[in-house]
Amino acid sequence: MSDAPKPRRLTPKGRATRDRIVEAATALIAQRGVAGVGVEDVRAAAGVSGSQLYHYFDSKQALIRAVITRQADSVLHPDEPRIAVLDSFDALRAWADAAIERQQENDGRGGCDLGSLAGELSASDEESRGDLADGFMRWKDLILNGLAAMRDRGELRPEADLDELAFALLAAFQGGKVLAQTVRDVQPMVAAMNATLAHIRSFAT
Amino acid sequence: MSDAPKPRRLTPKGRATRDRIVEAATALIAQRGVAGVGVEDVRAAAGVSGSQLYHYFDSKQALIRAVITRQADSVLHPDEPRIAVLDSFDALRAWADAAIERQQENDGRGGCDLGSLAGELSASDEESRGDLADGFMRWKDLILNGLAAMRDRGELRPEADLDELAFALLAAFQGGKVLAQTVRDVQPMVAAMNATLAHIRSFAT
Repeated sequence: MSDAPKPRRLTPKGRATRDRIVEAATALIAQRGVAGVGVEDVRAAAGVSGSQLYHYFDSKQALIRAVITRQADSVLHPDEPRIAVLDSFDALRAWADAAIERQQENDGRGGCDLGSLAGELSASDEESRGDLADGFMRWKDLILNGLAAMRDRGELRPEADLDELAFALLAAFQGGKVLAQTVRDVQPMVAAMNATLAHIRSFAT
Repeated sequence: MSDAPKPRRLTPKGRATRDRIVEAATALIAQRGVAGVGVEDVRAAAGVSGSQLYHYFDSKQALIRAVITRQADSVLHPDEPRIAVLDSFDALRAWADAAIERQQENDGRGGCDLGSLAGELSASDEESRGDLADGFMRWKDLILNGLAAMRDRGELRPEADLDELAFALLAAFQGGKVLAQTVRDVQPMVAAMNATLAHIRSFAT
């Protein structure tokens, strides 16, 4: 895996400017895909000068990696209520329902998640692929930790392959989402989450 | 859904030239993503003149839509043994195993499937999104038809929601594949297919 780009030590004002740039890039990429967004578009949308932007990001590549890190953190940050604790069947169901609801609010759109970025970048951009892989593995481990807590409390049978279940749930989420975005209907996402959660529940004690 | 681009009526030689162009575009997109490939790259790789290429495809967009149709057909064509008949548990397992094996042969790479194209194009290119949605729905219906045959033969219980199972299996395939491509390991794809096939099997009579 590659090292994620490390933000320099920033003043609060510098941090706010950097955040504004990454936020603008994220919104534009959600609309147009990575390929459809130029550094100049991001600069204009963020309302910063070229030299300001260049101070924080010396290339489009650096900007894309910051967007990936932001999107990975947005589901993984411990303060994030959606996914902070996935250590019960109810919590897993609530997480799935929240994700489905967000997808529905977006009218089936929403193309700046890790899965869409992976579809666009994994084949062509090795550094971004490494960052995306890190994001997915952190996300998988978060699901895995929840399942392990359930097993340790005796709610899942010891023979359950938790690594397999965690990957399966993440894959169902990603695959359901890309189908929902493409057919503009949440039904595939609902189906994928229902099936995988039912499978996990089949290991309940 | 959009109308798929209709190839003009072609002579055998014209058809071969057109196929060569689409094949070259598919291979280049698998390596670099749609954004990384220009019409001139495709022209050079296919070994055709600019006017020949323009005769068949008057824009990059037209070329991309032909690649999407090609990729959809490659898994959906009735002569395709991998997916022609998915009407038994053994056939579903064999299909999953073949897909996993292809992914492994590719060293975890292989970015020109419908899922990767959807990740790159669904948000930004409405015509391509329509073509991709058509491809996914045809694929889902093919899985659904196999499951319906199993139910009609009494191998699946009548209360099974076949539409949900078909979407779940397609989502597991897509999500498993994008994770495998990103982490460069087939494990997530194996996990996703195992979980969803086990769930389908839980409806066996």
